[in-house]
Amino acid sequence: MAKKPAPNAVALVSERRLWDRMMAMAEIGAIPGNGVNRACLSKEDIRARRLLLTWARNLKLDAEVDPIGNLFLRRRGTDATLDPVCAGSHMDSQPQGGRFDGIYGVLAVLEAFEALEAAGITTRRPIELVAWTNEEGGRYAPGAMGSMVHAGLRRLDEFLDLTDKDGIRLGDALAETLAAEPWIPRRPLGRSYAAYLEPHIEQGPRLEAEGKTIGVVTGIQGSRWFTVTVTGETAHAGAAPMRGRKDAVQDALRIIAALNELMADPTDTARFTVGRINVSPNTPNSVASSVQFSIDFRHPDRAELLRRGDAIAALAGRAVRDCTVAVAENFHVMPCAFDPLVVDAVQNAAEGLGLSWMRMPSGAFHDAQFMQPLCPTGMIFVPCRKGISHNVAEYAEPAHLAAGTQVLVGALLDLANR
Amino acid sequence: MAKKPAPNAVALVSERRLWDRMMAMAEIGAIPGNGVNRACLSKEDIRARRLLLTWARNLKLDAEVDPIGNLFLRRRGTDATLDPVCAGSHMDSQPQGGRFDGIYGVLAVLEAFEALEAAGITTRRPIELVAWTNEEGGRYAPGAMGSMVHAGLRRLDEFLDLTDKDGIRLGDALAETLAAEPWIPRRPLGRSYAAYLEPHIEQGPRLEAEGKTIGVVTGIQGSRWFTVTVTGETAHAGAAPMRGRKDAVQDALRIIAALNELMADPTDTARFTVGRINVSPNTPNSVASSVQFSIDFRHPDRAELLRRGDAIAALAGRAVRDCTVAVAENFHVMPCAFDPLVVDAVQNAAEGLGLSWMRMPSGAFHDAQFMQPLCPTGMIFVPCRKGISHNVAEYAEPAHLAAGTQVLVGALLDLANR
Repeated sequence: MAKKPAPNAVALVSERRLWDRMMAMAEIGAIPGNGVNRACLSKEDIRARRLLLTWARNLKLDAEVDPIGNLFLRRRGTDATLDPVCAGSHMDSQPQGGRFDGIYGVLAVLEAFEALEAAGITTRRPIELVAWTNEEGGRYAPGAMGSMVHAGLRRLDEFLDLTDKDGIRLGDALAETLAAEPWIPRRPLGRSYAAYLEPHIEQGPRLEAEGKTIGVVTGIQGSRWFTVTVTGETAHAGAAPMRGRKDAVQDALRIIAALNELMADPTDTARFTVGRINVSPNTPNSVASSVQFSIDFRHPDRAELLRRGDAIAALAGRAVRDCTVAVAENFHVMPCAFDPLVVDAVQNAAEGLGLSWMRMPSGAFHDAQFMQPLCPTGMIFVPCRKGISHNVAEYAEPAHLAAGTQVLVGALLDLANR
Repeated sequence: MAKKPAPNAVALVSERRLWDRMMAMAEIGAIPGNGVNRACLSKEDIRARRLLLTWARNLKLDAEVDPIGNLFLRRRGTDATLDPVCAGSHMDSQPQGGRFDGIYGVLAVLEAFEALEAAGITTRRPIELVAWTNEEGGRYAPGAMGSMVHAGLRRLDEFLDLTDKDGIRLGDALAETLAAEPWIPRRPLGRSYAAYLEPHIEQGPRLEAEGKTIGVVTGIQGSRWFTVTVTGETAHAGAAPMRGRKDAVQDALRIIAALNELMADPTDTARFTVGRINVSPNTPNSVASSVQFSIDFRHPDRAELLRRGDAIAALAGRAVRDCTVAVAENFHVMPCAFDPLVVDAVQNAAEGLGLSWMRMPSGAFHDAQFMQPLCPTGMIFVPCRKGISHNVAEYAEPAHLAAGTQVLVGALLDLANR
């Protein structure tokens, strides 16, 4: 059994303070049904950043922001020459999102800082809390943009001219966000870190089903996103005979039916989702001239991710009957395995605290995987009710959130004192 | 062979003037690809009404408007005690509509007035040009609202609180439209007419395929519109296993596949269209919590319209696997047969002019069918290229538009001199 880590700091994690802050954040962008709609770089995002900075004031953290708006709050260590440990998550939400996804990771690190401060502990290495810009991708795709740009996987200028559904440029929304806190010093993209650690709700049902409190996350399944555009020809719904129509809705259905076959998996490992469908002109009495729909395909096995994903375009071409089809891949990320340094630190901390835990891969992708070019990375999962996420009904127990934060304190003390 | 009708008036129909006016109207709400987006009661609709009134000025017509904004321009007859003959169509378009649907019928009647005026002809009965409000139903459903309310089939107050996609109330848009021409005298809804006649492009491929210039329209197939709402539960596209999902997109697909079976028709007589699909939350990485889609089902046979339409709700309930479904019928109209008085007047005029013609039902619905409670009604069809309509590519030959107007002059002289 592992050594019980820094018991005084762990004991000073406040379940109540963490929960109250979670609920205060949930008021920013609150939507009916206890949900949250806090799009990245929106007015709500700006308010959430300001609230975080307000809470951080007593902790005397050094704030910095990078060119894509990733916000860093550094707690100094005893040796300023050492690479910091980085920990955090994101503050943006899905349009119909919940109160826990993302924001928990940010507030858990803040709570860990509170506990360390109250215990009078200074680690050797600095610890940086990070709040990543645009993890969700709901307003501007792709998601995890902040961490990808920070780690050098994508360039910021690729994204500046993206527009949201109201025609607002990402570059303009970013400038507005940065201008809201003009006092924060800028830092460049990227740097060397000792490790990156991200607490998060599981967003799946496994921890709850198995009665475990902590998920020791071993890696993340791969994801591929596609946009399929079916182009037909509009016609009058009453006058145009069925024969001879080029109905984009009907051909989109044929493609999705074929995709369901391609993605069928008796082991229930593959994840295949058509979550967005946009029809044009989208009026009841006109045959659709075009349909655009999204494919979100994920698999933990690289070979399966490649085989099935690469088959999509040709299959769509065979499935259409009357229209033409184009398939574009917008985003892909291969499956990743987290570094044993971080995975073991999480597992040891959970075990040392006597919490129930299990090793598991993540079904969702997270900023943690995009930090891999910069340092060893890992995650801590806590259960969420029925696995519901990206939904106003998302819920996690206060005690589970606190337990995850206790594990975080233990793991940070381990990683930041090496 | 029928007597050639009033040759001097027919000869004075100007193909050029009619075409130029069509093209001038097409500039109001013009969209790329030669299309038109002129929603009912919009700024564009107001401009179109004003342009019509400007052209009508020399003809000394008596303008009147009813409570739902239907615009009447009366050409006086020799006997003011006789019921007028009414003729016209609508000036609104589909969102991605063409330059001919609706507006042709209005401008054809105006051109007929020009020809009668130039020929110095006064009919016994008055003739009223009508421009109906909201035939298309694209901004506020259902379509044919103006004629339905005028004929007493629906009440105006049922519709006043409808809102368009920008939240604008129909009542407010209507008030703005009426306020734009405050000088026009009001008239009540409804009245007794001697006949109603509506020129229109066919919106289907039959006249072109058979090489005929004039469609003598015998009636209109029936229509039923439904909205299907599938309610599931959103979840994270990466984390939620496929088993246990309540994916509204997948269940909507199951329903539409089952509807395709129900609507299958080897004779290609039934018309079945899913033209609108709205997904929520409509993000690529969230399982859809709900899908709402439209059904437009039409059939010329009353029994088939009832049998298949009535089967939809139960079939949808059987087709869903993981979600719940609700089916609402928004609109229905039974098949109608036009009155021999008007149908024969059209046929005789076409024959008298030596134009090629065929008797045919209408695939689309039109204001003509909703005028049936008030008087004998009928329609004149002219060909449109490839049958394309509700589409920016909609096109009709200037010569065909003029031929339809010549038939209109002949039929109006017949009907208005009885």
